[in-house]
Amino acid sequence: MPHPLTLGGRPLAGGRLPAICAPLVARTPAALAEEAAAVAALQPDLLEWRVDFFAGIADTAAVLAAARSVQQAARGIPVLFTRRAQREGGQPIALDEAQVLALYEAVAASGTIAALDYEMSHEPAHVAQARELSRRHGLPLVLSFHDFQRTPADAELDARFTQAAQLGADVAKVAVMPQAMGDVHRLLGATLRASERLAIPVIAMSMGALGAVTRLCGGVYGSALTFAVGSNASAPGQIAIADVRAALAVLQRATSA
Amino acid sequence: MPHPLTLGGRPLAGGRLPAICAPLVARTPAALAEEAAAVAALQPDLLEWRVDFFAGIADTAAVLAAARSVQQAARGIPVLFTRRAQREGGQPIALDEAQVLALYEAVAASGTIAALDYEMSHEPAHVAQARELSRRHGLPLVLSFHDFQRTPADAELDARFTQAAQLGADVAKVAVMPQAMGDVHRLLGATLRASERLAIPVIAMSMGALGAVTRLCGGVYGSALTFAVGSNASAPGQIAIADVRAALAVLQRATSA
Repeated sequence: MPHPLTLGGRPLAGGRLPAICAPLVARTPAALAEEAAAVAALQPDLLEWRVDFFAGIADTAAVLAAARSVQQAARGIPVLFTRRAQREGGQPIALDEAQVLALYEAVAASGTIAALDYEMSHEPAHVAQARELSRRHGLPLVLSFHDFQRTPADAELDARFTQAAQLGADVAKVAVMPQAMGDVHRLLGATLRASERLAIPVIAMSMGALGAVTRLCGGVYGSALTFAVGSNASAPGQIAIADVRAALAVLQRATSA
Repeated sequence: MPHPLTLGGRPLAGGRLPAICAPLVARTPAALAEEAAAVAALQPDLLEWRVDFFAGIADTAAVLAAARSVQQAARGIPVLFTRRAQREGGQPIALDEAQVLALYEAVAASGTIAALDYEMSHEPAHVAQARELSRRHGLPLVLSFHDFQRTPADAELDARFTQAAQLGADVAKVAVMPQAMGDVHRLLGATLRASERLAIPVIAMSMGALGAVTRLCGGVYGSALTFAVGSNASAPGQIAIADVRAALAVLQRATSA
């Protein structure tokens, strides 16, 4: 059986697959607080703060203040903290990887976030550091893989899910770009295999308009989370929260009938 | 590119994949007229009259009268005429196959229907007869395959679509029962391959609650039609028209974004 995401010992969204996560991508503290409040009002199950969009990322005090403002605006909705690396679709930032991990440490220690995302493609020592610090602060760690150009072969997709688990991830995430509908189909197949095989929750999607179906139907293949748009998208193909919720409601009625 | 269903030279539902078809399964003339009116009011793109449910099936005059009443109640919505064979999930009837084909001939000649469905598993002479009569009356022929127990292996799924095309079908339909989510995934893969390979439209679905996702997402895999419930379901897993329409609207917005 597929596993739901668990935060603080409780299954997200009551265990419903997929839970809905909305990204926050504002550049300034004021815009971020506004975005967080507006998106939280739409009641996603999780917020992802994409700190690589935040102009003040190199100022740890500014990041911590922003994290507090997001937490307050979130009104109880847990926050996933993510610096998406530029080579995996993130924004360019002025920090090196050691500085990024120091920032992760400071934010993890601040009590403002519920989970961390880190790319599994970083040097093993950095991945190990992300794993160690998140565990020490009692925060689940998502180890992620993104390819904004293509959908790797089945064996590589399978290997990415396995790699995340072997690196000690609490959640394995794979997001890839399809070139054709066959790629979308393969990603869903890999999601199903991983969700049946691994002991941890998996998150997977095919990006862009062609892959949009995976953002609605991924849950039946075992994907624990779908990213949906509150105010602004963070990746191509994301669908508005209200639309995702409407489609999931139909699907859940139908599959539980 | 996948092909939409074409009736009278026009693509059904303006070419949208999938079009929505609602079954009519009443037993009596009065109930059928009432069901047809109620379902037509929900504005599916196509109605399927499942004549094997009709108690008067052995009385050709009664069937023709019922066909006229369905046509009138349908208010312009085209009607697909189907006797589903018992071994493929239909109701028991008192007619032998020659009598069924005589009934098909009479109904096709009556001008009350827009298309015919016939199982490709019948004797070749019978399939040829269905093909000949439907062509002679200018009606598209759906050649169909159903398995209410299991999902055949990929090679057999592929072969069923190919067989329909080789037998001269205007539309190939495959409906199968999944035992696990992997079967649902395989059916969608076969749908995609067939829709890319064949020159005719394909219709495919995985039945039951497990397969319900295919009734919503089959269109992106190239399935031209989805069966949805107006008043009564005709197979397990069918979803209410309004729900199907809501989910399709989300999917179509997302995939055209």
